[in-house]
Amino acid sequence: MSGSLTIVGLGPGEAHWLTPAAQAAIEAASDLVGYGPYLDRLPAREGQVKHGSDNRVEVTRARHALQLAFEGRRVAVVSGGDPGVFAMAAAVFEALEAGEPDWLAVPITVEPGITAMLAAAARAGAPLGGDFCAISLSDNLKPWEVITQRLEAALSADFVISLYNPISKARPWQLGEALALAARHRPAETPVIFARAIGRADEVLRVLSMSEAVAAAGSADMATLVMIGASSTRLIAREGATPIVYTPRSVTKSPCATSQGRT
Amino acid sequence: MSGSLTIVGLGPGEAHWLTPAAQAAIEAASDLVGYGPYLDRLPAREGQVKHGSDNRVEVTRARHALQLAFEGRRVAVVSGGDPGVFAMAAAVFEALEAGEPDWLAVPITVEPGITAMLAAAARAGAPLGGDFCAISLSDNLKPWEVITQRLEAALSADFVISLYNPISKARPWQLGEALALAARHRPAETPVIFARAIGRADEVLRVLSMSEAVAAAGSADMATLVMIGASSTRLIAREGATPIVYTPRSVTKSPCATSQGRT
Repeated sequence: MSGSLTIVGLGPGEAHWLTPAAQAAIEAASDLVGYGPYLDRLPAREGQVKHGSDNRVEVTRARHALQLAFEGRRVAVVSGGDPGVFAMAAAVFEALEAGEPDWLAVPITVEPGITAMLAAAARAGAPLGGDFCAISLSDNLKPWEVITQRLEAALSADFVISLYNPISKARPWQLGEALALAARHRPAETPVIFARAIGRADEVLRVLSMSEAVAAAGSADMATLVMIGASSTRLIAREGATPIVYTPRSVTKSPCATSQGRT
Repeated sequence: MSGSLTIVGLGPGEAHWLTPAAQAAIEAASDLVGYGPYLDRLPAREGQVKHGSDNRVEVTRARHALQLAFEGRRVAVVSGGDPGVFAMAAAVFEALEAGEPDWLAVPITVEPGITAMLAAAARAGAPLGGDFCAISLSDNLKPWEVITQRLEAALSADFVISLYNPISKARPWQLGEALALAARHRPAETPVIFARAIGRADEVLRVLSMSEAVAAAGSADMATLVMIGASSTRLIAREGATPIVYTPRSVTKSPCATSQGRT
């Protein structure tokens, strides 16, 4: 039997955002490898083995998956959202590069998924209507100084900014500091979205102003995607509903003219 | 009859990346509104009306869709990829904000899709493994100076950069200039991906070095997603196959230390 490895994105939450290609990859697998709660979302199938693991062991999990595939198993590594966005795909390739040379012969494919940023944007309206960036606030893997430099660059260039991994028990203050930094660049009324568990039954979408967001940082958690509007991001109020957040496609002036001394 | 409007992302290319939720929204629609070639991808359904239009008339198309929904139709506005990323969602909200006050009563939902950047990344490996940004090179709606300022900010902060709308007959030189700018910030061997029509039968993935990409700019077209690696983005060579491109999750040093005079 010839093994293979597919890194599959489940999308956020319910199965209505799981692509047919990802569904097919999961069904075809002999072995499912992933973080326990993601595996729990998948029904048990006869003859299919689930290898659940803890959250913080991505490279160990990736090595295990590669070895299983090398031994001839049809392995699916499952990620929430999109596997290429702050999820398992990079960990698998890190493990591949540093691992057994024989593993290089394993066919590897990646099945994309709806990442949390797209799901949050869809629920809110169209906040990603202009140029945007995505930054992980986790400083497990990069210095905090790099994160703040990237935030400053994105703020001065007027990107919409999505913050992944905004907060955890081990990182309680980073989101507050990031939002305080944003508040020094953007007007107090700039929309900020806290999108929690979008696509799940218990999803919560909150549309705040920048100043409200700074005060509310502590109410976010690891299931929250935080999105900071650009200077042009705006609200459309609707009676009895959360306002629509959108970023117009047009930019009429240079956002950095003052801070970078350009004309 | 009570009308509604759903802005639906078809994902890139074939139906295996179309989410069940997007599929259901299309099937439930009485009227499909969109750019002709996107509508052509959808099978004809009895009693369902297709309103195809040209590419450059987003706001006119959006106004038409809002009016149909206001009149009681169940309208689906279809976009390729994700409707919130350089596609129809922002145009609909612009039209809503500037349009008839009555339109505000129309229920509007957005169905996310796999955007071209995620599809391209999946095919290439995991180039979005670190922080990243997405910039449209179209200068129909923003000055070229804003685009170059955003590119410079993204380059100096060492984001992976996805370029949407890289080139067209009306904009033949912008991609070349953007890549030349990138080449002044990043080493000549930095991987650059030209991902054309990923998800379609005629897809082409090319992995180039930065210097090759500068020379190859003219070979991109409107169906191409261009992705510029960060300084840490790297290749894993595999016999008889396109190399895998990935960006490690870790960052060990400050990318802006020199250019911003920090320590």
